[in-house]
This record gives sequence, structure tokens and C-alpha cells, in this order.
Amino acid sequence: MSGTLYGIGIGPGDPELLTLKAVRLLARLPVLAWPAPLEGEGMARTIAASHIGPGKIEIAIRLSFAPGRSDADQAYDAAALAIAGHLEAGRDVGLLCEGDPLFFGSFAYVLERLEGRFPIQVVPGVSSVMAAAAALARPLALQDERLAIIPSTLAEDAIAAMLEASDAAALMKVGRHLPKLRRVLKRLGLEDRAFLAERVGLEGERLIALPEVDQAFYFSLILVRKAGP
Amino acid sequence: MSGTLYGIGIGPGDPELLTLKAVRLLARLPVLAWPAPLEGEGMARTIAASHIGPGKIEIAIRLSFAPGRSDADQAYDAAALAIAGHLEAGRDVGLLCEGDPLFFGSFAYVLERLEGRFPIQVVPGVSSVMAAAAALARPLALQDERLAIIPSTLAEDAIAAMLEASDAAALMKVGRHLPKLRRVLKRLGLEDRAFLAERVGLEGERLIALPEVDQAFYFSLILVRKAGP
Repeated sequence: MSGTLYGIGIGPGDPELLTLKAVRLLARLPVLAWPAPLEGEGMARTIAASHIGPGKIEIAIRLSFAPGRSDADQAYDAAALAIAGHLEAGRDVGLLCEGDPLFFGSFAYVLERLEGRFPIQVVPGVSSVMAAAAALARPLALQDERLAIIPSTLAEDAIAAMLEASDAAALMKVGRHLPKLRRVLKRLGLEDRAFLAERVGLEGERLIALPEVDQAFYFSLILVRKAGP
Repeated sequence: MSGTLYGIGIGPGDPELLTLKAVRLLARLPVLAWPAPLEGEGMARTIAASHIGPGKIEIAIRLSFAPGRSDADQAYDAAALAIAGHLEAGRDVGLLCEGDPLFFGSFAYVLERLEGRFPIQVVPGVSSVMAAAAALARPLALQDERLAIIPSTLAEDAIAAMLEASDAAALMKVGRHLPKLRRVLKRLGLEDRAFLAERVGLEGERLIALPEVDQAFYFSLILVRKAGP
């Protein structure tokens, strides 16, 4: 009998934002895989560290953050092969995912390589969008409002169109796109309603009204809502 | 010194999807408030029940689900008054919120009545959208995709416009809006890419491809993604 692959959301950064289910699985599963940069253990492993017991088999999925996907495809192929080996041998495998596994997460790339071949379970997690709203203590959206989740990589006009069609938005992974986002938000008269949240729940957390932001890291997002105070 | 108000996300239904932080606060806080129908304890209290110890002061925020908001305003006024009394007396208060407190949650109505007067902390939670994607084991959105969160109450044209502007969407609280949503999705050629998730993590959970859905309850949502298998 083959093992089960678990995609485990470990939340946005604060180790206390793991779910009970994630904690139980981290204790029980014999094999744990996690995405990481080319060296070191990576953020997912660090967030979950206090819940990972001794004696685990661990698989690092190492990705460079260079542009282009060819590296990533090879890394996911290799990871899927290693994970499949354990599943075939009857060992359950947990894949640690920052935030939620299926919300802009890399779990999808392992899922697409293994689904249909093995039983798969996904444990949802707290996403960075919810964590940012919580840190700012501002509603993401209410009642009949439309909420747009917008990658900051998109072109200026595409971002503007999506903001105009929505009542509230989260702009993801701001980083070097800050000048473009500020320009769009200013043009739509939304700059004063936008807030940046950076490294939420981690050391160096910053929560700033957009007009006062000078620069942004990759792990940051902007929340904006048209209604409300 | 006044107490602190905690908005506590308790997740989408499965009691194992509470975060460690939520569990710790439910054990520690002397006063717990929760939304409920006019009779009974309500879903939030039920989800969290196994983590609520004896000896708590509990405040039921009772809301009828009749159309119109006047009832709700009075209920939130009364709840805010009761909560403020405990906070002024130095007692910390936790408000239990299904899913995430600031993602279409009623916590915002208590927050707007008490912010500025008392310290407020928000504990984010796993939302029903992430739980539905996990149950379906299908990605919500990936990479540069735009994800729209759309209340099903909106007019047909508004829903269509948002779907057209997005790469993926979650249609919230389907219920009696099922015929309208099906019509819109069919018109956009998306019916075969849409899935209904109902009562995720609870008894009576249903996960169905949209063409096979006959009816939907209020606590259901439709996920649709244009790309992928």
C-alpha cells in the first residue's frame, strides 16, 4: 500500500499560526519535504522547526530565484521523483508550504506531477493576506464587496483594470514593483487608502501607510479598500 | 488598565484547523463572545467548543438572518456595549470568528464600534476559500494569475465582468444564487471548470463538479480557474 502525500500549510510566519492539524502531521509523518533556496533551510522549514521532531527523513526542494522557470521545473521533477520513491515504499510524506498550499503556493507543481498516482491530502493554512489584514486590524472586504488578489508582476494597465473592477484588493509580493503600484494607486485616487505590510509575524515586521513607504521587500503586500474609515 | 479585545479566527469548520494561537487564547481569556442565530450556540461556538474550558463568561451576539440590517446594527451595538464593559473592567475578551476575522467576517462590525477606545489584536484564521481548495485539491491561483473573490449576491453583469477580468475566482455563499451563477459561468464557457464545495470539513461535506450540482446551501462556494487541467 502506498503512502499519502500531505500538502501542509504552515501559515505566514508566526510559528503559533500553524493549525493543530499541521502540528499533528509534522509530528507523525516520517518524511518531510520543504522548498528552500540553493543553500540553507529556507523559510518554510524555519517556521515549522519547533514542531519537527528528530529522526525525520527530509527532502530539500532547492530553487534559485533567478528569472525563468527551467531551473524550477528540474527541481520539482527531482523532488517529485524523491517523494514518489517514499510514497511507493509506503511512507507518508508531508510537503511544508508557506501560507496556504494552494493559494499561489509551489505545492501545485508537486501536485501536478503526482496526482492520480498517489492519495493526496491538503491541509489549508493561514495565508499572508489574512495575516497582513490582522496585523493592520483592517477589514479585507465586507458584505457585497469584490476582493481582488493581484500579483504585482502584472502590467500597470492590467492592475488598474482589476483595481477599478473591485471594491478591495491585495497586491502580492510588492518588492521592486513598488513605484509602479504607487503610480497606479495614485492615478485611481487610492494611495491614501493603501497600506503596506511586510514580513508579517517575523522579525522586522513593518506596517506603513503607502504614502510613507520608501521601499519594499519581496515578501510584502499592499492592502487597499475603497469603503470604510 | 483596560483589557484587550481579540478577534480570533477559528477556521472553516474542522476543529483541527484552529491555530495554536487561537487555542491558547481560548484557554486563557476570561470572556468569550460569539455570533449566533436567535436560538442555540451557533457555528463559531460549536467549532471551538472542545477548546473552551469551564468558567468562562460568554456573550452571545444573536442575529436573525432576515433581510435588512437594522436588527444586526442593534445586536452589534448591544454586543459592543457588553464587551466594552468587560474591557473597561480589565478583562480580556475574545470574539470567535468563523474562518478569518477580517475576510468577510462580522468582526469588522464590533471592531468599528470599539477601535480607538481599547487595545485590539486580531488572530488570522484559515478561510473557507482555502479550505474548499484543499478539499478539492485544486489550486486557487498560481504565479501571475488574478484571483477574484466575488459575493454571489451581486448582479449577473457585475459577476460576469469580474470573472472576465480574472484568471480564477471564488464565488462566495452560493445558496439561492446557484441558477444565476450557473448561467454566468455557462455564458463565459467556464461551467466545466467550476466546482462547488459545501460544508467543508463538516458533516454533510459535498464536493461536486458544477454541471452535476442540483442545489446549494448558503454555506457553499464555487471555485473556478481558467488554466490548468
